[in-house]
Amino acid sequence: MATPAPTEHAKPDARRYVKLPSPFPMWRGGELHGAQIAYETWGKLNRARDNALLLFTGLSPSAHAASSADDPREGWWQRMIGPGLALDTDRYFVICVNSLGSCFGSTGPASINPATGGPYRLEFPDLSVEDIARAGHEVVRSFGILRLDTVMGPSLGGMVVLAYVALFPGAARQLVSISGTPAASPFAIALRSVQRDAITSDPAWRNGQYSPERPPTAGMRLARKLGTLTYRSAAEWQQRFDRQPIRPDLKDSTPFTSEFAVQGYLTAQANRFVNGFDANCYLYLSRAIDRFDLSAHGEPEAVLRKAKVERALVIGVESDLLFTIGEQRALAQSFEGAGTETRFAPLSCIEGHDAFLIDTERFGREIRDFLGG
Amino acid sequence: MATPAPTEHAKPDARRYVKLPSPFPMWRGGELHGAQIAYETWGKLNRARDNALLLFTGLSPSAHAASSADDPREGWWQRMIGPGLALDTDRYFVICVNSLGSCFGSTGPASINPATGGPYRLEFPDLSVEDIARAGHEVVRSFGILRLDTVMGPSLGGMVVLAYVALFPGAARQLVSISGTPAASPFAIALRSVQRDAITSDPAWRNGQYSPERPPTAGMRLARKLGTLTYRSAAEWQQRFDRQPIRPDLKDSTPFTSEFAVQGYLTAQANRFVNGFDANCYLYLSRAIDRFDLSAHGEPEAVLRKAKVERALVIGVESDLLFTIGEQRALAQSFEGAGTETRFAPLSCIEGHDAFLIDTERFGREIRDFLGG
Repeated sequence: MATPAPTEHAKPDARRYVKLPSPFPMWRGGELHGAQIAYETWGKLNRARDNALLLFTGLSPSAHAASSADDPREGWWQRMIGPGLALDTDRYFVICVNSLGSCFGSTGPASINPATGGPYRLEFPDLSVEDIARAGHEVVRSFGILRLDTVMGPSLGGMVVLAYVALFPGAARQLVSISGTPAASPFAIALRSVQRDAITSDPAWRNGQYSPERPPTAGMRLARKLGTLTYRSAAEWQQRFDRQPIRPDLKDSTPFTSEFAVQGYLTAQANRFVNGFDANCYLYLSRAIDRFDLSAHGEPEAVLRKAKVERALVIGVESDLLFTIGEQRALAQSFEGAGTETRFAPLSCIEGHDAFLIDTERFGREIRDFLGG
Repeated sequence: MATPAPTEHAKPDARRYVKLPSPFPMWRGGELHGAQIAYETWGKLNRARDNALLLFTGLSPSAHAASSADDPREGWWQRMIGPGLALDTDRYFVICVNSLGSCFGSTGPASINPATGGPYRLEFPDLSVEDIARAGHEVVRSFGILRLDTVMGPSLGGMVVLAYVALFPGAARQLVSISGTPAASPFAIALRSVQRDAITSDPAWRNGQYSPERPPTAGMRLARKLGTLTYRSAAEWQQRFDRQPIRPDLKDSTPFTSEFAVQGYLTAQANRFVNGFDANCYLYLSRAIDRFDLSAHGEPEAVLRKAKVERALVIGVESDLLFTIGEQRALAQSFEGAGTETRFAPLSCIEGHDAFLIDTERFGREIRDFLGG
């Protein structure tokens, strides 16, 4: 791609786009017209087109997983993707997609509905993890790739990779599930549903009809604070914050203001998120996570046998409250039962669900070993 | 007390009241005038006045821990208090107090401020766990009791009993801490502070100036849902709800309505709470829990040595997310280090923090054994 002319407003942007077939029928009914998926790539697709690694994301990241010439900003998995790193771009052509339903270039509830000329908002059809997988597959097809070397995803992405191989048997030689699950537990559903309640009970949400300038920030802040609580662990915060008071400059004079360092951290996380994510997109993606259930595709071992994945790595952490290590162990057992060569890597990181973003050393080692093996 | 004349509006009520000294200086400054504490009792105070057991409550219950002739309704610890039960009323004179700052008869932010003739709301002075302990002590003094046989409390009550013996050395022969802690962890602080944020970011809260007819119900519902999440455990909900769909009659047509049974349970808990608890009282009590730190009274072993508790039982559950078993183990060790004859009973109940309300069989056995020993 030609370098864009440098203008005052030009922001670095490495995104490319694939148009989805139009109409694009959705898994639970309804269809999209003129929808697109944003993605970024690193490394080169080889002539045989058999060195592609497709990476799905968690709920909130964009396709910008790592820096590149077109966008030198740090990505959400910066230390994992590059020459000689775990996702080795000397060897792999890495594709990261922004999920269908999200708001970083892919079509979602904040996008324009061609039928009305206004944003979809709640007219966006029901979103399923299966739709995210199918939309990602269109990116793969656009490159003429017949079979991925590896499909990989953390968190929500760990569900998407299962939907992917269930829907497209034989489409991936290897699979890496990172802190994922074949179906969310009732505790995780409860935690996420209260986040959605926080948004929908904010009067500024206006039944989804908020204007982009007046989003339901109070509800989104609450949702993100609660999310952050479930992405980490008690042990990490004990080490990191203990009962330290908040930095005096972060304290304000409102009643019941924050007094402890951990509260300042939650607030900072929430503020960052509120300015970057659309509330309706959040609601659709969050609900899709709750609804996904691999067993809707059939008995898990049978589904995975049919999926023809040769090798699978199931990796997660013992301190994960949200996608528990027990769920991940069960997934690894299903792969084994399906005859897949399986590695199960339960890590003892203390960072909880988000450990894959933080302890890239340990996660990197496991993934590099697997991909190299 | 004379039986009230039966009128259409007469509700069963076993509460008695003690006036606090006026002014009643508060631990962190400020004072109350004409304040009172509501309490209920079961069993009889013996002539030596040495068979009293003082029970403090968790954040939200009233003093109605069990039924009695004056109030036959089931209490919050019904299966624990009575003739032959763990808190054996054939033997003990059991007193349960409604915490200062609460809204079930004791003075709190929803009470009338004699200085203005209107509710205190945020003019209620800062509330500390120490104030709850001191107010409870006034009830004990009103009976001419010089030394309690036992002071006992679960959850917040587990903090109050520590404040009690720290403030009144020698005032209790025995202490029972149930799922308590000497100081909340940053994870628990974070969980509670998001509950407070849910209330204070509800526009209906109006900076505490809501009218009793228009309370911040949306914020209170969110707070209670989140609270409920932290009072139970993932394992319990797996057993109880798994991924069962919600009962069809509980589903509504609002966007992002509940779909799973666990969501229906959270909603039911929230609805029950919203109609029963004042939002400002909740904020004051919740913050008091975060702020309490036994070590503010001195090095814990030294404080407990000075407290002259002869025997202590520290009981809690391994699945407790909020007041972890590690914190309870540390408390037991401090008692041991202080020379107190100590029992530590870590229970393997799966109900999380609230297990003391549910698994009364196991808790009852431990407490009966301790009190009998």
